[in-house]
Amino acid sequence: MNAEPLLLKLENTVFLRGDTLVIIDRRLLPLDIKEIVCSNSDDVANAIKAMAVQGAGDIAICAGYGLLLAARSSYSRSAQLSLLQETARKLIAVRPTGFHLQRFLEKILDNVNNQEGDCAEIIANLLSDAQSKQDAISQKTGRNALGLLENGDTLLTHCFAGAGLLYLCKYAQQEGRDFKVICTETRPYLQGARLTASSLAAIGVDTTLITDNMVAHCFATGRANKVFVAADRIALDGSVANKIGTLGIAISAKHFAIPFYILAYGGPDRKTASGRDIVIEERDPVEVLAGHSLSGVKALYPAFDITPRSLVTAYITSKAIIPSADF
Amino acid sequence: MNAEPLLLKLENTVFLRGDTLVIIDRRLLPLDIKEIVCSNSDDVANAIKAMAVQGAGDIAICAGYGLLLAARSSYSRSAQLSLLQETARKLIAVRPTGFHLQRFLEKILDNVNNQEGDCAEIIANLLSDAQSKQDAISQKTGRNALGLLENGDTLLTHCFAGAGLLYLCKYAQQEGRDFKVICTETRPYLQGARLTASSLAAIGVDTTLITDNMVAHCFATGRANKVFVAADRIALDGSVANKIGTLGIAISAKHFAIPFYILAYGGPDRKTASGRDIVIEERDPVEVLAGHSLSGVKALYPAFDITPRSLVTAYITSKAIIPSADF
Repeated sequence: MNAEPLLLKLENTVFLRGDTLVIIDRRLLPLDIKEIVCSNSDDVANAIKAMAVQGAGDIAICAGYGLLLAARSSYSRSAQLSLLQETARKLIAVRPTGFHLQRFLEKILDNVNNQEGDCAEIIANLLSDAQSKQDAISQKTGRNALGLLENGDTLLTHCFAGAGLLYLCKYAQQEGRDFKVICTETRPYLQGARLTASSLAAIGVDTTLITDNMVAHCFATGRANKVFVAADRIALDGSVANKIGTLGIAISAKHFAIPFYILAYGGPDRKTASGRDIVIEERDPVEVLAGHSLSGVKALYPAFDITPRSLVTAYITSKAIIPSADF
Repeated sequence: MNAEPLLLKLENTVFLRGDTLVIIDRRLLPLDIKEIVCSNSDDVANAIKAMAVQGAGDIAICAGYGLLLAARSSYSRSAQLSLLQETARKLIAVRPTGFHLQRFLEKILDNVNNQEGDCAEIIANLLSDAQSKQDAISQKTGRNALGLLENGDTLLTHCFAGAGLLYLCKYAQQEGRDFKVICTETRPYLQGARLTASSLAAIGVDTTLITDNMVAHCFATGRANKVFVAADRIALDGSVANKIGTLGIAISAKHFAIPFYILAYGGPDRKTASGRDIVIEERDPVEVLAGHSLSGVKALYPAFDITPRSLVTAYITSKAIIPSADF
């Protein structure tokens, strides 16, 4: 029996300890389990900005804890309300591309504004609910994705596609399915290597790591025959914002007639009409240049790209598998 | 005035010193100038295998120096001839995908077999000729490529496309052209960052580094509008073996109607009919896993991929620009 991977449940890596929020730094996983202890919402914002938490849903709940710390820092309800407004604005701005962060913090603000009582208590309840709900959505999404897995499949995935991918693989193992997974390493933060590959290997999945530039060759040579990736935001036109590199994988998949599936969890963002409306976070180019020691060279770091619906085979939510044509 | 980049001329990084061949280790450039001193052909083979020399043409000439050291180690012509045969076989096997290595060593063997006199002297003359010829071919290829460059272009390149790319950029600068270059870092050996980006920045070209997974996004957002890459081997059907990642770039370029040019230098390998006949070198997966510290995870390291003619816009040799349809 293999251990449950650390990243299957958010409470393993993001949790309260007394007056603080503890975040297990995902940038160091799986090599090192290092705690980042956040005393206030600025600490939480900095940890999110620095990529100590990764994955759109997990970032959203972690930011919710930031609001909880803010609410706890003030005793008057009116002071709490104005502080929460300001803190939510700051936290949302930290990672603009992901949909879940904005939606969850806006939901928290709506609730504290419309409910009587201590804001911290309201937020704590919302966090508890959101965490259970996210886990249930991941399980259902993984269960739906299982319907697309066939014996002999080698799935290719990019970055960390969330707990839904881990559940998919767990369920497939429980049913005795014959399958393998290829993970792109996902430069520059290497989430595919550190988070996905290590999590899958921990539960005994046949897991192979490749560099990001090997994807098309894996398709051309029959080494991978299906793609499953997640989405940081899905627009109403079906455009998918996901980790940089997703677009290139989708284009290559289309070229080789390889099905390209989106683990869409809760579905699209009803406030974003099209891919053009999604803000792509541009991170500090130093994060790309780091370690290269190059003089006079610039860099780009768009953290996400937009994959149009025409390149997607189907969207897998917690409720259904939605073929691209029906989206 | 900017310095001439180290990699413009092979004699800057691969040269004789007394009885030894000195190789400047390209894996450490540009950070460190470290000499690998080879006393015999086994040392040369090991250096090539370990990627201390990179670039198909440069590897070929470096291997030729391996034959020179072998020839020098023996005084009887008959012993030299059998030793050279055996040494060439070993050197060719070290990097099977590249065309130039095999062709050049076979040419050396033909010459020593058919000419009277000391083998070492014959090889030294062939090396001197080959080096001049390679430099002339790079200059002519760069000059021909200049005909495809337009003001305002941002070229995207992958891995180290050889001196021809550096000449192209030098000539473009001399003519006052307005252009930029985006280099993929080219995991796992990072030739694009260490060799290409550093060489271009050294001559003052506006140079931007990206990770390998950012290519499609750069095309989608208009950040790059032409691709120039090299070829380790071109088959008679126009299939191009080049550094892993080239195929994915070509597919994305086609998707966005971005011209995709091959710096083809001396042209195709007349002995290889199609892409299916090209052996893809599979390197040690440890080179992909290195630094990840992942337990239970496997890896793949195909060092090259095959791009079919249908994805190539034109081949640029030292003689002409050959549109794909005419190849």
